[in-house]
Amino acid sequence: MKFAKMQGTGNDFICVDCFREKIVHPHSLARRLCDRHFGIGADGLLLLLPSAAADCRMELYNRDGSAAGMCGNGLRCAGAYLNAHLLPQRQEMIIETRAGLKRLWKKEGGYRVDMEAPRLEAHALPVLSERGLVIEEAFSVEGKTVTLTCVSMGNPHAVCFVEKTEEAELELLGRALEHHHRFPEGVNTEFVEIVDEEHLKVRVWERGCGETMACGTGACAAVVAGALTGRCGRSASVRLPGGTLTVEWEQGGPVFLEGPAEEVFSGEIPAV
Amino acid sequence: MKFAKMQGTGNDFICVDCFREKIVHPHSLARRLCDRHFGIGADGLLLLLPSAAADCRMELYNRDGSAAGMCGNGLRCAGAYLNAHLLPQRQEMIIETRAGLKRLWKKEGGYRVDMEAPRLEAHALPVLSERGLVIEEAFSVEGKTVTLTCVSMGNPHAVCFVEKTEEAELELLGRALEHHHRFPEGVNTEFVEIVDEEHLKVRVWERGCGETMACGTGACAAVVAGALTGRCGRSASVRLPGGTLTVEWEQGGPVFLEGPAEEVFSGEIPAV
Repeated sequence: MKFAKMQGTGNDFICVDCFREKIVHPHSLARRLCDRHFGIGADGLLLLLPSAAADCRMELYNRDGSAAGMCGNGLRCAGAYLNAHLLPQRQEMIIETRAGLKRLWKKEGGYRVDMEAPRLEAHALPVLSERGLVIEEAFSVEGKTVTLTCVSMGNPHAVCFVEKTEEAELELLGRALEHHHRFPEGVNTEFVEIVDEEHLKVRVWERGCGETMACGTGACAAVVAGALTGRCGRSASVRLPGGTLTVEWEQGGPVFLEGPAEEVFSGEIPAV
Repeated sequence: MKFAKMQGTGNDFICVDCFREKIVHPHSLARRLCDRHFGIGADGLLLLLPSAAADCRMELYNRDGSAAGMCGNGLRCAGAYLNAHLLPQRQEMIIETRAGLKRLWKKEGGYRVDMEAPRLEAHALPVLSERGLVIEEAFSVEGKTVTLTCVSMGNPHAVCFVEKTEEAELELLGRALEHHHRFPEGVNTEFVEIVDEEHLKVRVWERGCGETMACGTGACAAVVAGALTGRCGRSASVRLPGGTLTVEWEQGGPVFLEGPAEEVFSGEIPAV
């Protein structure tokens, strides 16, 4: 089976062109191939398949074999693969995902993705709250009080502003919030430092993963929460451990996520 | 540049056939390629080059770019690559390393390597001691007393017998021994559980790495120390987190290490 190893801000994927390859058991294949010592090694397995409605359909599986939801880094990697191998010279692409059709544009140094409008209603995440929106609300966690702003980007995010990301109690608070009774489906937590109105530094605790190199939806949630609370503008660059992403939130509209995505190497592995 | 990704008991290497490929800066290349998110991902970069004295010469670089010393898992992976691509049907091979010429044999399910005789003299590791050999000697570390037997397999090992490897204070003691004043060049520490005379369970703290999936020289050192102290026979299987190795210590002679090694996938990455 042929594959390409792709990465976007350090979030890496084994990309398989299912226009040519046939995958029968993607869940177990993802577990086997994503293993970093006995397999190819990646955060996820990204399958590109034919679609009636779009340029292709993307299926994304996590390293534990579960089907992944929305993933901004995965979409950019899918776009980069499509652009290099299947649709050369296309500036705009449409990819079908479990979360609907997604639009991408090729840009200098990367790809731009329409991540759609954030949802702020508490039930959209879901987060249990007596208010309709959770903006700067106090949560009790691990004997401390943290102030959170909750944003859904198709997946649930809790944004916590901090003085310095280096000093954030990421593992303690991230893990505790993931299993907090007020987040019945768990939550991804962003620890966000405002450098200035247009520059954020962010570290993310992803539910089911722990700290990651980068989280595209997390970068979007950070800027949305920052703009909502008057801490930054609607457009900002977000520095994550794995690289920098640019986020732009259109007034009353979608969030656009822009950043690098590249093919690192190509390979071939015996079929199962 | 073409490469093959090899693994032996979970210890994984990017193997490059330098009969065909030309590598100019192996140290920086190792750092770049071994990165598991932005590169190919591996524990080391293994170069196979022409040799006047042997079937090939092996150069091994760690993921931090440093040149590696003796490595039993790396040798088996080099043997598996040679056997598959350069010397098909050869049962015996000789590989030149920094530590001299090494002999390997193809076996059912893996490769057998002549790891040469262990050295037990304290100055061979080196370990500071008032005695010539360090066998069952007490060391003070982190406010505790641990009993160690020291073995050089070309690199320094301190073997600590424990009731259960799961309960060993691997990180605390491994890290402290690595930087202990009695090991001026650091040390690899094996925590060894005797299951019975022919079966050991081992976890290894490797200097400069931390806990690893498997350490070939560490497995050898564990059996040598077990035999020296009457805990096991001269031949035993060693179960490590990444798989099982078989070790045989010939009376007054070399140690033979046998275990699996396989090519996981082949690939191609743009040259630097």
